[in-house]
Amino acid sequence: MHKILVDGEWREAGRPAGTFRAVNPATGEDIPDEYPISPWSDVEEALAAGAAAAAMMASLGPGPIAGFLETFAGEVERRREELVRTAHLETALPAEPRLRSVEFPRLLDQLRQAAAACRDRSWCRATIDTRLGIRSKLGPLGGPVAVFGPNNFPFAYNALGGGDFASALAAGNPVIAKAHPGYPSTTRLFAEAAAHSLREAGLPAASVQLLYHIAPEDGLRLVSHPALGASAFTGSRPAGMLLKEAADRAGKPIYLEMSSANPVFILPGALKERGPDVAGELFQSCSLAAGQMCTKPGLVVLLQGEAGETFIERVKSLFEASEPGVLLGPKVLDGLREGCRRLTASGAGLVTGGRDAPGPGFRFMPTLFRLPGKPFLENPAGFQLESFGTLSLVVLARDMAEMTVIASRLEGHLTGSIYSHSGGQDEVAYASVEPPLRRKVGRLLNDRMPTGVAVSPAMNHGGPYPATGHPGFTAVGFPAAVLRFAALHCYDHVRPDRLPAELADRNPTGTMWRFIDGQWTQQSL
Amino acid sequence: MHKILVDGEWREAGRPAGTFRAVNPATGEDIPDEYPISPWSDVEEALAAGAAAAAMMASLGPGPIAGFLETFAGEVERRREELVRTAHLETALPAEPRLRSVEFPRLLDQLRQAAAACRDRSWCRATIDTRLGIRSKLGPLGGPVAVFGPNNFPFAYNALGGGDFASALAAGNPVIAKAHPGYPSTTRLFAEAAAHSLREAGLPAASVQLLYHIAPEDGLRLVSHPALGASAFTGSRPAGMLLKEAADRAGKPIYLEMSSANPVFILPGALKERGPDVAGELFQSCSLAAGQMCTKPGLVVLLQGEAGETFIERVKSLFEASEPGVLLGPKVLDGLREGCRRLTASGAGLVTGGRDAPGPGFRFMPTLFRLPGKPFLENPAGFQLESFGTLSLVVLARDMAEMTVIASRLEGHLTGSIYSHSGGQDEVAYASVEPPLRRKVGRLLNDRMPTGVAVSPAMNHGGPYPATGHPGFTAVGFPAAVLRFAALHCYDHVRPDRLPAELADRNPTGTMWRFIDGQWTQQSL
Repeated sequence: MHKILVDGEWREAGRPAGTFRAVNPATGEDIPDEYPISPWSDVEEALAAGAAAAAMMASLGPGPIAGFLETFAGEVERRREELVRTAHLETALPAEPRLRSVEFPRLLDQLRQAAAACRDRSWCRATIDTRLGIRSKLGPLGGPVAVFGPNNFPFAYNALGGGDFASALAAGNPVIAKAHPGYPSTTRLFAEAAAHSLREAGLPAASVQLLYHIAPEDGLRLVSHPALGASAFTGSRPAGMLLKEAADRAGKPIYLEMSSANPVFILPGALKERGPDVAGELFQSCSLAAGQMCTKPGLVVLLQGEAGETFIERVKSLFEASEPGVLLGPKVLDGLREGCRRLTASGAGLVTGGRDAPGPGFRFMPTLFRLPGKPFLENPAGFQLESFGTLSLVVLARDMAEMTVIASRLEGHLTGSIYSHSGGQDEVAYASVEPPLRRKVGRLLNDRMPTGVAVSPAMNHGGPYPATGHPGFTAVGFPAAVLRFAALHCYDHVRPDRLPAELADRNPTGTMWRFIDGQWTQQSL
Repeated sequence: MHKILVDGEWREAGRPAGTFRAVNPATGEDIPDEYPISPWSDVEEALAAGAAAAAMMASLGPGPIAGFLETFAGEVERRREELVRTAHLETALPAEPRLRSVEFPRLLDQLRQAAAACRDRSWCRATIDTRLGIRSKLGPLGGPVAVFGPNNFPFAYNALGGGDFASALAAGNPVIAKAHPGYPSTTRLFAEAAAHSLREAGLPAASVQLLYHIAPEDGLRLVSHPALGASAFTGSRPAGMLLKEAADRAGKPIYLEMSSANPVFILPGALKERGPDVAGELFQSCSLAAGQMCTKPGLVVLLQGEAGETFIERVKSLFEASEPGVLLGPKVLDGLREGCRRLTASGAGLVTGGRDAPGPGFRFMPTLFRLPGKPFLENPAGFQLESFGTLSLVVLARDMAEMTVIASRLEGHLTGSIYSHSGGQDEVAYASVEPPLRRKVGRLLNDRMPTGVAVSPAMNHGGPYPATGHPGFTAVGFPAAVLRFAALHCYDHVRPDRLPAELADRNPTGTMWRFIDGQWTQQSL
């Protein structure tokens, strides 16, 4: 039985605790390693140790935290092959290129960008008003951040090592990682690297803690606990909604990424000009990682008619010619079956797929549905639910007016794409669809599919509810993602020698950006 | 019967609607003007008109909004004497200096700062990553913002004209103002100025709407309505908690300022050095506007002993020598009576006051309680509840260790003050009390009382729950207060001619600050 990491020690989980094993999704068979489901007493110990660590970290400044993130990235890099092998076994995601050449470099890049943001300090938006003697900056929350990792990114979104983890630490908060039960051994390897790196960097031992699994009700207690700073959750909408309700009731910030249909609008000029190319891009984006991406295009809107029929035929043949990918686990398979039942019952027409694929483990045929605009508009919320996996719904609008109404009846999503003619033929249609779509999505794309989330300062991996819980924050991109885990700290006539370094007259790094008397500057006062 | 302002028209409130009259707090008598309590149909009409206005405003850019805020400030300025007279009648706040020379200039300054932030555009944090072709900025929420004004600032926090109103508009959102029922005629005058200014500025007629009063259950429906962008509420904790729950459940952002005890720690060196001066400052701050300030110091912590007793005696004599102010209304009076009952029942000792003051209308004696540290620590939450009015509780800690524990047992508050010796005598004590206090407050002060909230870019008028609903935002200060009412809008490979002006290669104003490839700059690309 593997041990949890609490307060710097690898210790046995408390009793009574259940146990679990991960499943190899390619075979459907259990992996031998046994992991504990922690009782509430483990969570409580992690909270107490995390709260003490939060107080200690506040006095250390960003140097040791940045040092930890860099050392940790190096330790993780050293363990690359073991991580790739383990994650492949636990998730069935392809070792190459996905795990080794795509997700792993992204993970390292994220950790190093977080470390750089932490060292740079500009993220904290130090603001100085010399005339009034008031200074402010963003600072840590005063308690640990609980991070709940998703099933689909064992590296880049790992509760221990991924983007939320790095962001919460960069803001100066300890992390309590709640591993995704789909890949506990991958997470354990990260935790081993972290425990080593904490000692190297001189951070408190409880700055990073790991629980493999907890009961759902203990998750609710965790996100609403008085000692907690905030939570970050990436996962399904039903689980996210329960956590949100518990955290909201306790007044605890929670950042959620819950689901998205990522609507793609293909305007008539683009359909005519390059329909087959767009169909190919849709297939690629939709089947990437067997469709198990937060940004998978699950809803495609185009005009009914001959070009639309040709497009659907093309996507159908690409779907049918492709090899069904292995799904992450039985829940994803169940979700696809349920999604097909729901769409069929609601009146969508099955174009292809809609059933399990042959082979061991968890596999489903790439699936395409179609629906006219009218029934969509009679039940818009029912046709925007995310189905994780290679499943997409093409909605055929009667005309541009109906397409625009469809855009206006969207819920909140992470992304929205518009394909338009490369010349000027779709400008009127674009001007009609873009404004309602803009209001409903975090990231608006032109002429590209939504998968592929660059770690850029300008990225927004977020969006209006119910895609996330707040439309003003992104889960990806530095320094912006760090802002989620910060409190605004104002110092009103605080004596100069008592100010944090970021608010002293002297610029603490010489390069940190500060907003002084209404101007951004790197100068000292 | 006065008319509500919906969709640009002064119209009669729908039926069935109740009515109400404001009360002159100095006499306790009704003011003749009769105002409607709007039924849900009025709210629904305002929401529909506001949603349409939101779409229109998004296409107008900041020019007309800034123009409106400036014109409105001018119109309000023209109506100054009528506003001062009316607000004095409805609130009993002194016309001079409070209303005419303090709050009114602040109101104008806020409106003009909001207009400047809107024209300047830097608030939207335009971020450009040239290498990856990704650009983002903060933009409007896509629906109107409901603003609920408090009882205590008929100008500066008026739902129609105050800081939340100006911030929501500066971000590009229409406002539905829910007036405070304590001063409907003051609010009506503002609305008349606004209706005129909207036409001048060329904003949609429904960019500013006014309802005088609604049923509590309709308030819950309003903050959770799908067409709404967000809400802002300043008022009591019980009302704020109900609104928060409704908004949270619907996934609608809500910014609340709910209550604060504004703890003041007086370290032993400061008490010895200048106890009488600090007692005078406490009295001034505590009795300002008859104690009806969000930042009134309601909790004072110092060491037990002779100096502490002298301090209490001094505050007592100042309280007893002062004229009790007129309260804003019967609810404030009831709150003070209830606060005294609660504190007495919990074991606090009454030093002075604790009963109604003679005279017509609503008056209460300036009230001081005292309590040793031990009982405070046995029931910390019970002794931190805000009592609006001149009421403060002095907690006498046994030693510095106990004072530090008291700081660590605080809930979230807007402010926290530390008075310390002007030389070095209190540095050890400061280092002990500051870290726990820092985590629990939005604004930390040295050697001053918390009343007086400057409208500065570095101000934080916010704080951890339950002072507000989110620790990262401020309700006062530009451009920061604007950030509450914005969504993050990312443009991923959007064609250059389709980008909003703030994200085009060319800097739209020549002076707007943008974060381009990791550097803040005013240059064009």
